[in-house]
Parts: sequence; structure tokens; C-alpha cells
Amino acid sequence: MQNHRNLPIPDSLADVCHPDRLALVVHDMQVGVVGQLADGPRVTDRVLRVLDAARRAGVRVFFTRHMSLPTELMGISQLRTAMAWQRKDRVEDVVSPFLRDTPGFEIVPELAPRESEAIFDKLAMSAFEGSPLGFALRDAQITAFAIVGVATEVGIEPTVRHGADLGMIPVLVTDACGAGDSAAAERSLAALAFAGDAILTDIATITGLLAGEPQRARQGISR
Amino acid sequence: MQNHRNLPIPDSLADVCHPDRLALVVHDMQVGVVGQLADGPRVTDRVLRVLDAARRAGVRVFFTRHMSLPTELMGISQLRTAMAWQRKDRVEDVVSPFLRDTPGFEIVPELAPRESEAIFDKLAMSAFEGSPLGFALRDAQITAFAIVGVATEVGIEPTVRHGADLGMIPVLVTDACGAGDSAAAERSLAALAFAGDAILTDIATITGLLAGEPQRARQGISR
Amino acid sequence: MQNHRNLPIPDSLADVCHPDRLALVVHDMQVGVVGQLADGPRVTDRVLRVLDAARRAGVRVFFTRHMSLPTELMGISQLRTAMAWQRKDRVEDVVSPFLRDTPGFEIVPELAPRESEAIFDKLAMSAFEGSPLGFALRDAQITAFAIVGVATEVGIEPTVRHGADLGMIPVLVTDACGAGDSAAAERSLAALAFAGDAILTDIATITGLLAGEPQRARQGISR
Amino acid sequence: MQNHRNLPIPDSLADVCHPDRLALVVHDMQVGVVGQLADGPRVTDRVLRVLDAARRAGVRVFFTRHMSLPTELMGISQLRTAMAWQRKDRVEDVVSPFLRDTPGFEIVPELAPRESEAIFDKLAMSAFEGSPLGFALRDAQITAFAIVGVATEVGIEPTVRHGADLGMIPVLVTDACGAGDSAAAERSLAALAFAGDAILTDIATITGLLAGEPQRARQGISR
Repeated sequence: MQNHRNLPIPDSLADVCHPDRLALVVHDMQVGVVGQLADGPRVTDRVLRVLDAARRAGVRVFFTRHMSLPTELMGISQLRTAMAWQRKDRVEDVVSPFLRDTPGFEIVPELAPRESEAIFDKLAMSAFEGSPLGFALRDAQITAFAIVGVATEVGIEPTVRHGADLGMIPVLVTDACGAGDSAAAERSLAALAFAGDAILTDIATITGLLAGEPQRARQGISR
Repeated sequence: MQNHRNLPIPDSLADVCHPDRLALVVHDMQVGVVGQLADGPRVTDRVLRVLDAARRAGVRVFFTRHMSLPTELMGISQLRTAMAWQRKDRVEDVVSPFLRDTPGFEIVPELAPRESEAIFDKLAMSAFEGSPLGFALRDAQITAFAIVGVATEVGIEPTVRHGADLGMIPVLVTDACGAGDSAAAERSLAALAFAGDAILTDIATITGLLAGEPQRARQGISR
Repeated sequence: MQNHRNLPIPDSLADVCHPDRLALVVHDMQVGVVGQLADGPRVTDRVLRVLDAARRAGVRVFFTRHMSLPTELMGISQLRTAMAWQRKDRVEDVVSPFLRDTPGFEIVPELAPRESEAIFDKLAMSAFEGSPLGFALRDAQITAFAIVGVATEVGIEPTVRHGADLGMIPVLVTDACGAGDSAAAERSLAALAFAGDAILTDIATITGLLAGEPQRARQGISR
Repeated sequence: MQNHRNLPIPDSLADVCHPDRLALVVHDMQVGVVGQLADGPRVTDRVLRVLDAARRAGVRVFFTRHMSLPTELMGISQLRTAMAWQRKDRVEDVVSPFLRDTPGFEIVPELAPRESEAIFDKLAMSAFEGSPLGFALRDAQITAFAIVGVATEVGIEPTVRHGADLGMIPVLVTDACGAGDSAAAERSLAALAFAGDAILTDIATITGLLAGEPQRARQGISR
């Protein structure tokens, strides 16, 4: 940890891995998203390992849900994105996959949010765009967030990039994130490593740090 | 309606009162908010008159809900605001009044949102801060929003100011908004009239315009 | 100062009046703005007293400038606002009053920003909308901002409201702010006092606190 | 062009390539940025070809400039990013490369902005974060933006992603963008093609469309 005008400048994952500074973002682990993945149950299990460690350490937990508006309210970009993702050529053929209060919209039951945890809904790919997530983290003086969930190449990469642009330190737990397209997910990880503002780590390292195993900290060094 | 580089510049309420350009925002008409007002049922009834007219005219409808985080997640400003509103001197004594999935958090049943309408939750006073509302309006090429609900002096004035700062034309239906403190609400209306970017109107005028009564339009002229 | 989960919850102006937690925002003290006020030189002098105290205390200083786009780029709301402020009925008659690199756009020379201070330009009324101000404050772990400048009823009230909505504690130095319309400015101060999230103070109190005079602190208590 | 509730849904580049719907963003073509590229003059020349075509077609033009704060004001993420980019291990060794009013901060003279064009400064990687760009485009009812400049893998990819998340249609003119690291730039283009919300095109296609050559339009089809 370095210091500049009384500001603590973290050098390593160990520097940020403290419940006063780090929150956990569980990204889009919804029934209708996880169900699309070949290895959905495995991803859920891996997310749960980080979630359990965060809960035990007293880390604040925020769940995100991707929400679709009813087609009557969809605007130009929502309709274009829906056509692209649903591989439709005609706007009349798109559907709203993640409508509020439908079964596919809910968080998978294995990860059921507790009363002391938050759920934020969003329309954008970045979980910071059009949601209270940035405000909530900053208001609690949180300066870093670990992120787990799905999908690396769809919502997680933009969330990490946007979080860094908002001044937070993203900590991507690579093996606790699922992907729909593994080549695209690899490209996302390479791009984030190149950009250099996120810390990439894995389940073993972060759960060790959260459990207070100081000897693991050095393995997590990165910038 | 004037014109500048092919941009339509509205001069009057009639110019914006069209389902391709205007949306309706029903602001915080939640059980736990409306229940605090002496004239809650009367406010609900007045909001319903505008909502009915908007639904008949095919205007897009967006409901907002004020949400509280559990105290475990509240940050500095949330705790300070809660102490001020709940008149508590000690941070340990504050409660979370609008927790997700509690009865007071829900929209009052008289206004039950339809499947074709949206509900956006927010932590801030401005309904545009940390919510997808601005994105959703812009994506549908909406340039003006009528606002009804509660409370004029708490959330509605900041929402109107912020909406104007984001480039939209706010249309405040003054008699379809409720207040907790009538002197403060009068001051909010005077401030908005002075600022000049919002259009202030009433239920009779806007429901007439939405029903296509052109003769009423002139009464709604404002800036 | 109270405490919640290791978060420091300030109770008084003295709690936030520290260069690690408070920044100074000098709002729109531009040649073309100040020149419109009857008491412009007096306002400049009062702003300078707070600026001097902040500089001596090592408080970070951020200047804002209101910017107009050339008429060729102005959109619907910019044109409507310009018509209202310039009292024009026809869109062809509006002008761009604060074009970049024009004399009226610059900060008044008495307050000349230093190399260690920032200047942020904005199109909106709130200095937090469409500017890097919120990011810059948060990145330096600043949680409160004192605001001085012009005009109370035009840009300062929305900036204070928006700052509170973003989770910061606004500190309005009432006698170091100028107004174009004194009745409207009084209404703004009453509205901010009612909303309760800003701290209203005066030059004597804040300069005393910044100079380390602890006996003055109790006078500044407010929420 | 398709239609949904009177909303025009563009299918092709030709659908958006109109001065009422498309703006040009010239990204970070600053002396101190372009000077770092081996092929800087070539990139400037290519950007100028698109800029000339846009000016002839009456397309609104917005320049962005990357700005650094003085080190006295830099916060945690700014210092971390500066250490990473400047390959410094100690926070004391970082410098502010793009200070306002320094020679390296200015737009390269070959592209000198006209009085009818805007310049927006930013601290973030995304040109939409903490800047008035999104507001300015929306206020002029612009729904798509062509982007040219530097660097593809640093600021342009996040700006394109964020612009899409805000509901605009990004049009990346691939051969009018420069890169500092060609492998990373290729990865950025692949990621944007995969995400599917941006239109990737080239100088010949877009300048042809802007000049009103309808026969080229079909080549630009993409989603």
C-alpha cells in the first residue's frame, strides 16, 4: 500500500481484500441466463464458493439482474440488440426475454439473496449504467469490487471497464465467471489484462484472502 | 412548433402532447408513501385520472418506486438522510422504510401497473439518478415527460430539474401531485416556474389534450 | 462523528471540514456571468475569502465554467432554455453566450486558478451532470464539498441537490454566493434547508474552521 | 429501415448516415497522443478524410480531448492508472501527461476545430463518462455517431461500448482509427464485432455515403 496526500494507493489484491474496502457483485445469475449455459450448474457452484467466503468475511453483497422492457416500451437500441441476440431479421419477431416477475428473471435459488443483501435491476450491459450500484458502493466508501457470475464476454467485461472508468478497482474472479462463447470470453480477459486497471484473480486466491490467509496474498499481486 | 436545422422546437404543451414524444412518469405512488399523506386517497384518484387518459392515448407509462437498502448496506449519505427524515440523533436508531418486497414498497393497487408498463426502482431523490429512466425515454425518442405522484417537494422537484438538465421537457401536472408539506410544495412550484424549463399544467388541460381536444391546447401554452 | 460498520458519519460541519474529506467548488465565476450581477465585485471578493482560506488549508479546489455550444450544435432543450433566458420568441434570435475561448467564458482574474487546481466545463445547470466533478471528488475520497460562486437560484441549488443525490455532503457558504434574483435565491435557500441534506454555513464559520479555530465549530452544526 | 410504434429502426449504415441522425466524434487527436504513434501523420491524414466528408455533408462534429488533473488532485484510480501506463512502481514518480493548456493537450493543427464544432474534455476512457457528449447528441436528436481517432484499444473501444449502452448506434470507421498496440486493437475490433451493436465500416464506404453515393450503401450493411 502506497500513500499520496493521505490517500491509500493499493498495490496488491491483499490491499483491497477487506470488508471496509471491497464489495462482491454477483452478476446476472438469473434462472433464464444460467439456464442457457452448458455448464450452468458448475458456474453456480463456483459463484457460491466466492459468495460463501464473502458472507463469512462480512463483505457487502450486491446482486444484479438483467431486465427487459415489454416490447411496447422498447426503443431503437433495445430492439436492434434484441434482433441481433435473437437472430431475427424483423422487429415484429423479437420477444422480451427477461421481463420483471417472470421465472427466468429471478436469481437462481442456490444463491438466494439474504435480507442484508441488495438486488439491482438494469437494462444496460454495464451494471453501473442506469443503476444505483456506483452510488451504493461509493456511499459505503467501497473502492474495489470483486465480480463473479455471467457472462464474461457479454456483461462482465463492460461492467469491469465501466467500473474502472468510475474510479473503482475491479477484481475479476476469472474461474467464478461463466461464458456463452469461450473464445470471446478469452478475448475479454486478454483485453482486461491489457487495459491494466482491473485485478484478475481466481477463487482459491480470493477465498483465501477473505478467510484471512495472509500467505496467499503475494500470489494475488497484479495491477 | 419552431424549427432549427430540422429539429422541432416545441412552443406549447400541445406540441409535446403526443404519444410519440411524451411519456408519463408515475412517481413513487407506493403504499408506504401514499399512506403517510392526509389526502392519500384523493391524490391516488387524481393520479388515476391522468393515468387513464395516458393509457387511452397510447402514451408509454413508467412507474418509479423509492427503495431503501438494508441498514447493513447503507452508506454515509443514506444514513444521514435517514436520520434527518426519521428525526433520529443516533445512527443505530434508523430503519429501512422501503425495503424491496415489503408491503409498503409496492405500488398502490388502484394504479396497478399493466404488463405493457415499466417499474423502475431508485435510491436517489431524482428518478433519473441511478435508474434506467433517462435511457428508456431517449431510446424511444421521447423528448418530454408528464409527471404525477408524490411528493412535489421531495422527489418530484429534483426529478423535474434533473430531467430538464438531461435535455427533456418536464410537464408537471400540478394537481395530480401530492405533498407532505404544502408550504414546501408551493415553494417547489414557484422555483420550477422561475427556472422556466418545465411546463406546469393541470389535470383538465392535459387529459383534454391527450383525448384530442384541440381547443384546450391554447390554455396549456407555457414555456 | 458517529460510526456505522466502520463508516464515519459526520454530525457537524467541523466533522467534514478537513482537507482529506472536503473540497471547494468555485461555481461559474466567469467574466460574463459575474458581469451581469449588480454586486459582482462584492461577490468576487467574498468568494476570494473562502478560496484563500481553502488554499491555505490545503483543500482541493475545483472551478466550474458554464459553456454554450455554437448555435449550429444546439439541440432542442438548449434552444428552449436560450429562448427563455434571452427572452426571445423565435429560435433564430438566440445567441451562444458562453462560447469556449471567448472573454466572457473565462474565470474572473481575481480568482485565477492555480496550476494545482482544476477547471471543469459543463453544459448543464448541475455541475455534476455531464462533467468529471463527481468522479474527481470520489477518486480522492472526498465526501463533502463547500460551494461558493454564482448563481444561487440558477446553478448552485441544482448542483447542491444533485451532489446530495450522488451521496456527497454539500456545504453551501450562503454569503459567498451571488444571485441574479434575490427572491428566487431566498426560495432556493429555504428549499435546501427544508430538504435537509446540505449544510448551510457562512464565510466566517467556514474560514474559521479551515484555519483550525475549533471554538467556532459548534456554531456550524447543522444537518 | 424498419418501424416499431413509429420508431425508425435502422437496418444498415445507409439508414443512419444522414446529418439529422449521425454525428462525428473525433477522438483524442491531441498533439501528445498522436505524437506517440509510429504512424501518427498517417492516422491524422485518414481522420481528416472523414472529417472533410462530414463537414461537407453538414454533419455535427465533436472533438474529445483526454485531460489529466495535476498530481495534487489525482485520486486513487488516476494514480494507479498513471503508474500502470507510465510503468512506475512508486506513486511519487508519476506525472500528469495531458494538463489543460499544455502543448500536448491541444488538437493537432491539421484538424483544427471550427467555430461551429465542439470540444469536450474528459478524464475517463469512455468519452461518454463525465462529459456532456451524450447530452449534446441526444439534445440534437442524434441517434448514431461515427468515431475516428486514437486509440482503438484504449479509449475508442470503451467509448463505443458505452455509447451502445446509452442507446446510440456507434459507427466505427476502422481504418480512420490509430492504435498503440496493433494486436490489442485487433482484439478490440473482434470484441466489437462479436458484441454486435456497433457498425464497423471504412473510410471509403462512409465518405461515399456522406457524399450521397447510394450505390455504396449496400456494402455498409451490418448490424
